[in-house]
Amino acid sequence: MKLEYWFDFASTYSYLSTMRIKALAEPLGIAIEWRPFLLGPIFRDQGWMDSPFNLFPAKGRYMWRDMERSCDRLAIPFRRPSQFPRNGLLAARIVCAHSRAPWVPEFTRAVFRANFADDLDIADSAVLAQLLGEVTTDAAAIIAAAQTEESKLGLRKQTELAARRQIFGAPSFIVNEELYWGNDRLEEALEYAKQLR
Amino acid sequence: MKLEYWFDFASTYSYLSTMRIKALAEPLGIAIEWRPFLLGPIFRDQGWMDSPFNLFPAKGRYMWRDMERSCDRLAIPFRRPSQFPRNGLLAARIVCAHSRAPWVPEFTRAVFRANFADDLDIADSAVLAQLLGEVTTDAAAIIAAAQTEESKLGLRKQTELAARRQIFGAPSFIVNEELYWGNDRLEEALEYAKQLR
Repeated sequence: MKLEYWFDFASTYSYLSTMRIKALAEPLGIAIEWRPFLLGPIFRDQGWMDSPFNLFPAKGRYMWRDMERSCDRLAIPFRRPSQFPRNGLLAARIVCAHSRAPWVPEFTRAVFRANFADDLDIADSAVLAQLLGEVTTDAAAIIAAAQTEESKLGLRKQTELAARRQIFGAPSFIVNEELYWGNDRLEEALEYAKQLR
Repeated sequence: MKLEYWFDFASTYSYLSTMRIKALAEPLGIAIEWRPFLLGPIFRDQGWMDSPFNLFPAKGRYMWRDMERSCDRLAIPFRRPSQFPRNGLLAARIVCAHSRAPWVPEFTRAVFRANFADDLDIADSAVLAQLLGEVTTDAAAIIAAAQTEESKLGLRKQTELAARRQIFGAPSFIVNEELYWGNDRLEEALEYAKQLR
């Protein structure tokens, strides 16, 4: 049984599950479908024009402290980004257009690390070109293709699909139509996928 | 080291932590401070006039399914209440006024079970009198005292204290000024209290 992994490159808790998912899924033999999408349009449908962590200050302060504690506990490097949320549009278009490419898991981890450990601007195509160059020889062509209308449409359709699947936050995991929300539910989603195998 | 347990009688995830906290805290020798408060005023400060689970339908649908799955996994009885959120004002005033009484943990569990397993109206003083009668001989006097201005003021102050402590949801746990939010963080909060002992 496969697990659909829905994430947004700007999402703090998606960073945690991105760094954890391979080590947890591989021993169970569960295949991951990498499904980047944009939280922005989904939040706008709820009336939020910014991240809820910015709109609701107490919740935001808590999230940053919780991220520090969680990264510390999980031994995941973390530096609070100087800009939040960062614009993950280009990275999401790239992964959306190549979701089955063998370099996608490693590239995705690299982009999240750039955002949440190295405080780099992942909206910058030069940053992404460098990270892509570490996992494939086609970096320039892949970045150029990500700017096309077809690529833009691909990510738009994926985000619309997320909304139709009732996804309201990230990360989310779908196994056999069951939705699991949040990094805290990754183990439970994998356990369910394992039962169905 | 003590753990402050902040909960709202109408909160679904507070039901889970209320049913779990004794078995987890007792073996560690961690004392629990029972701190009922009202989410209503805290949500209103964020511009929400109802539970976010009612205001945001996808989030609400997910929460009910997640509750079913979680209760199933934890072997906690659960029936979705016919009214949500229920008015937990009177129950909260009672516990707030007697938070150190020996019957408080058992009474609190009984009120949550009434709401989330038996679909009873916990705003009804007759329902609360019956549950109180099972743990103390002073039920009538306690209910009468809960209607006084002093008792109302006590809960109002407790809710204001929750807001000052940056609490934005329930359940929340505070250990040594560290805030933990959500039933999923109960173990981590207890672990921290244990380290400080």
